[in-house]
Amino acid sequence: MPTTLTYDAVADLDRGDPLAAIRRLFVLPEGVRYFDGNSLGPLPLASRERVAEAVEQEWGQDLIRSWNLHHWVDLPRHLGARIAGLLGATPDEVVIADSTSVNLFKLLSAALDLRPSRGVIVSDSSQFPTDLYMAQGLASLRGDSAGSKPELRLVEPQDLIDAIDRDVAVVCLSHVDFKSGERRDMAELTRIAHQNGALILWDLSHSAGAMEIDLDGSGVDLAVGCTYKFLNGGPGAPAYLFVARRHLPQASSPLWGWFGHRDPFAFKTSYQPAPGIDRFQCGTPPILSLAALDGALDVFDGVALGVVRRKSLDLGDLFLDLVRQECAGMGLSSISPDRERRGSHVALRHEQGYRIVQALIERGIIGDFRAPDVLRFGLAPLYLRYVDVWHAVRALRDVLETRAWQDPRFERRGTVT
Amino acid sequence: MPTTLTYDAVADLDRGDPLAAIRRLFVLPEGVRYFDGNSLGPLPLASRERVAEAVEQEWGQDLIRSWNLHHWVDLPRHLGARIAGLLGATPDEVVIADSTSVNLFKLLSAALDLRPSRGVIVSDSSQFPTDLYMAQGLASLRGDSAGSKPELRLVEPQDLIDAIDRDVAVVCLSHVDFKSGERRDMAELTRIAHQNGALILWDLSHSAGAMEIDLDGSGVDLAVGCTYKFLNGGPGAPAYLFVARRHLPQASSPLWGWFGHRDPFAFKTSYQPAPGIDRFQCGTPPILSLAALDGALDVFDGVALGVVRRKSLDLGDLFLDLVRQECAGMGLSSISPDRERRGSHVALRHEQGYRIVQALIERGIIGDFRAPDVLRFGLAPLYLRYVDVWHAVRALRDVLETRAWQDPRFERRGTVT
Repeated sequence: MPTTLTYDAVADLDRGDPLAAIRRLFVLPEGVRYFDGNSLGPLPLASRERVAEAVEQEWGQDLIRSWNLHHWVDLPRHLGARIAGLLGATPDEVVIADSTSVNLFKLLSAALDLRPSRGVIVSDSSQFPTDLYMAQGLASLRGDSAGSKPELRLVEPQDLIDAIDRDVAVVCLSHVDFKSGERRDMAELTRIAHQNGALILWDLSHSAGAMEIDLDGSGVDLAVGCTYKFLNGGPGAPAYLFVARRHLPQASSPLWGWFGHRDPFAFKTSYQPAPGIDRFQCGTPPILSLAALDGALDVFDGVALGVVRRKSLDLGDLFLDLVRQECAGMGLSSISPDRERRGSHVALRHEQGYRIVQALIERGIIGDFRAPDVLRFGLAPLYLRYVDVWHAVRALRDVLETRAWQDPRFERRGTVT
Repeated sequence: MPTTLTYDAVADLDRGDPLAAIRRLFVLPEGVRYFDGNSLGPLPLASRERVAEAVEQEWGQDLIRSWNLHHWVDLPRHLGARIAGLLGATPDEVVIADSTSVNLFKLLSAALDLRPSRGVIVSDSSQFPTDLYMAQGLASLRGDSAGSKPELRLVEPQDLIDAIDRDVAVVCLSHVDFKSGERRDMAELTRIAHQNGALILWDLSHSAGAMEIDLDGSGVDLAVGCTYKFLNGGPGAPAYLFVARRHLPQASSPLWGWFGHRDPFAFKTSYQPAPGIDRFQCGTPPILSLAALDGALDVFDGVALGVVRRKSLDLGDLFLDLVRQECAGMGLSSISPDRERRGSHVALRHEQGYRIVQALIERGIIGDFRAPDVLRFGLAPLYLRYVDVWHAVRALRDVLETRAWQDPRFERRGTVT
């Protein structure tokens, strides 16, 4: 680092920020600098309005008529199409349904059907655990007519490429690692999967909304993701799934819910999948949660994801530079990759990580902790300022210098993503 | 019918109604008499408040900290326990998760595991279709190590009991028929299933909240249901599932989501189911929708379901009596069972059913239509008045007498439950 970073230099970055005005579209509590948008994005003003409208007018006044009058029945497709625009997908390739976990189940099952002579799901140990659990559960459940079961081949990240052989039906990977923040090379890994005749399923939970994604341009087969992180859809907001158009005619969901039926309101006794992506819907969609997401997506209207990505990386570089400058010799190390391979959070390690995160939260710097010793700081370019990073790192230094983390109040209890 | 029913006699019934005050706990639009609470219950005032609180304070101000601070993480169990009190179940037997469809998948799969030497799911053609679809999808997916697949044995309602033999793993039935409103004898059918060594899974979507249910007293094994009908949880509100305590140690979900893990926040790579009913959770729960449901359940505090049931039946008897009195010879017939076998809606048939329902809606009488010719009128005792029934039947008579249904505006388009 050649020159010392000063507060004034950092404040200058905010003055030149083309995204600065977007911050006003969010509710951001007084006294909080929020570095946990990678777990739960803050409340967009438009979500507050849309939820109130869905509750007061649509549910309260128009009642059952809202399924048609306010197009509730179309919301999963309508919001899927809006999200498709953030993923480099066409509108007919994405739909909102269920949770990320349930969508993983559907698409892993669809992938096994699309590669009937193969039975291996490959993933690596850095995956978000629910991805692995759903694959394990699916493998234990499914059986082909010869009685053979699929198998999850779970390898260490460095062994991933070697594990992709001609037995593999589908490779299931996080685009951005939930712990280290490492961003996988989507196009290259997709190419390697295809080279071996396998499909690829990307979990976009930690990347969608924070960077450009080009599902179609990268030749991706399948993808899932949640909407409550960088998409700011609200706590437990419903998830989305993507199926490449070329697979849609053959791809089938194992969860034959009535909203995936070709004609749900004919109430027939036998299942006929809807044409296209709609067959991956399942039960009645959660309208209030969809309304919150509808509002949240307004924030992205007219926002260039390339600009978002650049600011995310600049925030991360600044964070890591400031840590080096302010916190040297205090027991912190970075597990964050370089700019090219980084997602949209930075990750540090410290043996007192848990307690340090608690002490920071008390100071209004909200990041989070991941066992055993990782401090995560999400970098959401739509509302974070460069000076927020300055204050976060100064607070971190203060907590370390004064050993404020030793306070017994910061002893470990449960945490939640 | 010995004496003629008059408006004054009907209004007297409201004056003697012990539930009359509960109506004030709901938002009920001006000019509407709402007979579709069996599709979507109206907005409880407390839901409006709880959603606003969850949006403004919990999401908006407290952000990620609300998982602990506002006990978001406990909501699926907390609300499950509240619903258990309406189902004759103990609090540790019920949890909120996913949709009814997805919960059917989980519990049908659990039932097949609990009866490993049997492979038949029995149901009948009067079931709500998603129940049948989910069973069909599960059967096509699962395979045992010998390569054999389970099978859905779908029979006509009159053949149901004969179909329950020693090959049957689980009988899957609606407590109340979504079309005719017929209420099945839960204790007796459960006994017959058990006599043949089978389990039983009840779908309570059309009964919970409208009558006393005694899952434990009837020896029921498994149950699912939605919360957006007589429980008034809001459009697409999340569903619940019940597993009898005696099955909990062995019962397992095929959807191994991280919220069903013994220790979700340890982020281990292999799945260990949580003890008890929690293992039937899956992905991250939808907090805003859960908040609406939390408020909606307040309405039931201190309400005796026996009183609710009695009023529901009285409303139904009144409805059918008035139809006989006012609409004789107008082409209507009733498919509603007698009082003892009736759920909480009445069902009429008319060859112009669709158009008649539209004409009634225009007059502020909201019921719904089910193909091919069924007019349904939901009877929700918490907010419906006896005079609402009077006005509904008079409007029905008016539509029929004047042939108002012939108006081209009432031509058939899509409808939604």
